[in-house]
Amino acid sequence: MKETKRWDTRKTDYLERMSGATPYIHNGKVVAAAETTRVLEAVIRPFDRVNIEGNNQKQADFLAEALSKCDTRRIHDLHMVQSAVPLPVHLDLFEIGIAKKLDFAYSGPMGGRLAEAIKQGKLELGAIHTYLELFARYFIDLTPRVSLICAYEGDADGNLYTGFNTEDTPAIVEATKFSQGIVIAQVNKLVDKVTRVDIPGEWVDIVIESPKPFFLEPLFTRDPANITDTQVLMAMMAIKGIYGEYGVKRLNHGIGFNTAAIELILPTYGEELGLKGKICTQFALNPHPTLIPAIESGWVESIHSFGGELGMQKYCEARGDVFFLGPDGTMRSNRAFSQTAGHYACDLFIGGTLQIDKYGNSSTATATRVAGFGGAPNMGCDAKGRRHPSDAWLKCGAEFTSQQEYLGPMPRGKRLVVQMLESFGEKMVPSFVDELDAWKLAKNAKLALPPVMIYADDLTHILTEEGIAFLHKCRNLEERMAAIRAVAGYTEVGLAAKPAQTQALRDRGIIRTPEDLGIDRSRANRSLLAAKNIRELVDWSGGLYDPPARFRNW
Amino acid sequence: MKETKRWDTRKTDYLERMSGATPYIHNGKVVAAAETTRVLEAVIRPFDRVNIEGNNQKQADFLAEALSKCDTRRIHDLHMVQSAVPLPVHLDLFEIGIAKKLDFAYSGPMGGRLAEAIKQGKLELGAIHTYLELFARYFIDLTPRVSLICAYEGDADGNLYTGFNTEDTPAIVEATKFSQGIVIAQVNKLVDKVTRVDIPGEWVDIVIESPKPFFLEPLFTRDPANITDTQVLMAMMAIKGIYGEYGVKRLNHGIGFNTAAIELILPTYGEELGLKGKICTQFALNPHPTLIPAIESGWVESIHSFGGELGMQKYCEARGDVFFLGPDGTMRSNRAFSQTAGHYACDLFIGGTLQIDKYGNSSTATATRVAGFGGAPNMGCDAKGRRHPSDAWLKCGAEFTSQQEYLGPMPRGKRLVVQMLESFGEKMVPSFVDELDAWKLAKNAKLALPPVMIYADDLTHILTEEGIAFLHKCRNLEERMAAIRAVAGYTEVGLAAKPAQTQALRDRGIIRTPEDLGIDRSRANRSLLAAKNIRELVDWSGGLYDPPARFRNW
Repeated sequence: MKETKRWDTRKTDYLERMSGATPYIHNGKVVAAAETTRVLEAVIRPFDRVNIEGNNQKQADFLAEALSKCDTRRIHDLHMVQSAVPLPVHLDLFEIGIAKKLDFAYSGPMGGRLAEAIKQGKLELGAIHTYLELFARYFIDLTPRVSLICAYEGDADGNLYTGFNTEDTPAIVEATKFSQGIVIAQVNKLVDKVTRVDIPGEWVDIVIESPKPFFLEPLFTRDPANITDTQVLMAMMAIKGIYGEYGVKRLNHGIGFNTAAIELILPTYGEELGLKGKICTQFALNPHPTLIPAIESGWVESIHSFGGELGMQKYCEARGDVFFLGPDGTMRSNRAFSQTAGHYACDLFIGGTLQIDKYGNSSTATATRVAGFGGAPNMGCDAKGRRHPSDAWLKCGAEFTSQQEYLGPMPRGKRLVVQMLESFGEKMVPSFVDELDAWKLAKNAKLALPPVMIYADDLTHILTEEGIAFLHKCRNLEERMAAIRAVAGYTEVGLAAKPAQTQALRDRGIIRTPEDLGIDRSRANRSLLAAKNIRELVDWSGGLYDPPARFRNW
Repeated sequence: MKETKRWDTRKTDYLERMSGATPYIHNGKVVAAAETTRVLEAVIRPFDRVNIEGNNQKQADFLAEALSKCDTRRIHDLHMVQSAVPLPVHLDLFEIGIAKKLDFAYSGPMGGRLAEAIKQGKLELGAIHTYLELFARYFIDLTPRVSLICAYEGDADGNLYTGFNTEDTPAIVEATKFSQGIVIAQVNKLVDKVTRVDIPGEWVDIVIESPKPFFLEPLFTRDPANITDTQVLMAMMAIKGIYGEYGVKRLNHGIGFNTAAIELILPTYGEELGLKGKICTQFALNPHPTLIPAIESGWVESIHSFGGELGMQKYCEARGDVFFLGPDGTMRSNRAFSQTAGHYACDLFIGGTLQIDKYGNSSTATATRVAGFGGAPNMGCDAKGRRHPSDAWLKCGAEFTSQQEYLGPMPRGKRLVVQMLESFGEKMVPSFVDELDAWKLAKNAKLALPPVMIYADDLTHILTEEGIAFLHKCRNLEERMAAIRAVAGYTEVGLAAKPAQTQALRDRGIIRTPEDLGIDRSRANRSLLAAKNIRELVDWSGGLYDPPARFRNW
């Protein structure tokens, strides 16, 4: 029964590939930038699983470009396994034929090209993941054979300093190197001694100083000047009707002006409600510039970050009691741990979406864009493995009476998952729809399921300019649909609301309008914002925040 | 509104504490073992959050002992935040008054003492967690100020080799060091150069060579000699009725003889069913010795491990195509990543429990033992953030029709979560009960909720000697309760089963007996086991497996 088998093929293969790279390696592990494409051709094989590091912030863009210049007779049909494909070059790889299959989490601006490439048969889509889920598969069935990563600094031994933008690097490197794969790093600067060892040299095979620093996108920067009075009203509802109501201390929220507005009225409206110290004390969150006034006002005890945010580095370093800093005094982010924290240690996730269907399922997918959801599904779901209680989690669970249909009388908590959006989005497109466009995308892109960002059973609240729907308090699907209609404004879904039914839901506290919450609409305007523009954020930071050029309009 | 505030108190405090330790530190970061208690007194403060590394495998036992010898006038009321408290000294700390509060995940043999300490008011219980959940809180609201960790080797610069038993170390160190806390490592050996850098020296403050190697518990070793014919029958049902039925390739399972039996009949019964390559190809699992015959027979493509298992080190190193090895050729485990893999990348969790209530909630808690559940809740729940499909996950979701009550017609997958147990457990205690003992424990230990290991809504299958109940196929609670009764044997719960109702469930495929599955009971005996005792496991391994002394009975 016992087979004779070789058990070290990974190791042999590794040595063979690396011996092909040897002619290009000088001075320890260093390869000259000009030799990059040659080295990639030496160590990558057709059909390999390859990771190009990149997320919604930093990008190993130089290595991606070098890969795109490889000879397609030598390198083709790669299976790309990577967090994000937001750069044109990521899709070029498929056009050229270097890559064939993709497993990913976020595409951002490339969502349209991605859908088109699938349609044309140039790209075979494995699946859309949430970040942590994709990292998980790196250790099970999607382990990269070669990973192309990026860092601020590297030395000849391979030690890397990834600092503020450590992000996905530790997860990628661990999965690759400890399965005897190959790790190649582009670094902004080759140095004699790195500022701090974020990745030990032994875990890295090749270091290349790239001709220019890696690309960084300030994805989490929102100019307060663009926040509207309606967004201020909704932020007031979020703070009084949800954060204050449940005593939400530990949270994560999405990007966008709605949640930026919440951050910016903590020091004004939140203070007035006496909620300081009672809500918003701990975050799993990137260093959003709009959080500065709340931090400076002493609201925030700690923030653990997925990644960095362009311009916030010095501010974070000067706020070491709040952010996670290394012994060298600079920040260390870590997406894997911050996503874990967002999943298991936070009581609330609040974010936006493009569409919610009449049952409460939501998605940012459209018929012609395969966008991915990044971290939202991981934080915008009920973490069923959670066992530690908190007041917010217990209260939400106690209100979720329909779970008795599964659990009998056994009590359980529930995470607060809030979708915050206006009933009509940009260009007056309705946010509430009969059927999600995700169904069409599933058909177009041949997906096994419509890509849903947050499922209805995980969603507890919808917050619109009309009010808040407490969906988890509903007894059944019909009641939840009525609650959704009640906050859906003048959309087709909202127009189907029956006034008597809505009133009955208000009487039971399932729907709460600003009036029900005792919110004075006349105060809902921009004057409540602790900072009204980027300039004022810089002032709050004492000049430590250094916004990117495109946000400097003074 | 802006407050004048110092933002570097963590840093200042760190420097102050470390200056107290300076007199004891010689040769880089080294402290002599004899000075350990003095150093702990210098760097720890009353009410600190302190982590003592330890899990169900390795233990920082020397540092725990040293802490227990501290002067209680100097060190008291510590808040221990740590994975496990399985050693007597962990509870001694509370008896003595050095520690006051506990947040943890697993207590094992100390469950009884823990309950007693709570009752006597000597220990204030924060909460019971699953491992990954506790790690998550290290980055949010339970960040350790001082962590006492362990490693195989350390050098004077603080570089650590944790190798095979890396386990929790990276998560603990990252949370502690990057919040400017203090990391103290006991190492089995001080060396000039570590075998491999698992933890960079800059992340460690103090290294102490302990007088003896850290304690290791072979928790995952099961002697096949103790597997019964009934367990073989149940293993056959698991393979044919669940693994084969759903095509389960990626999985995690618990410890115990039931799942050991499954592993051991893969090369015999599994082979016979033609399932090789179709099931059990990837695992998130410790290196269980009973997995050796399946590995040797070519069933297993890869295994990522939470921790090591005593005696399996050499075997793992010689099977580098299956296990995760570092560039030095020794294994690296990592609990945080393996738990992430178990949560998001596995299609099935199968494990055992002490009690299941009539609704399907299960727990290993008893009225007088606060045991904790380790990783089970994290893997034995439906990972609601998962977005990538697999055949097994899609099929289970398609069968879970009652989810339409929440989602409308939106389809979704579901993880297979199986409880496998005989209707009567050890000493003929019934496994099926009207009400879990967890309710009594909640009262005794003043817990906010009864500690449930796996909730009924996450559970898809119960497998007993009677057959398999496909709970997720049921339309409502009443039907699920009937299905549970049908497999509950001669317990009180089982005796309430109505034969006509059971027959109707069999007709609908919700209950399947060995006969329904076409399993020949006459073949269900120990002769199917690929290895019948530890000695045969050693043989299968070609002598590479080196079982601990207590398992050597030849």
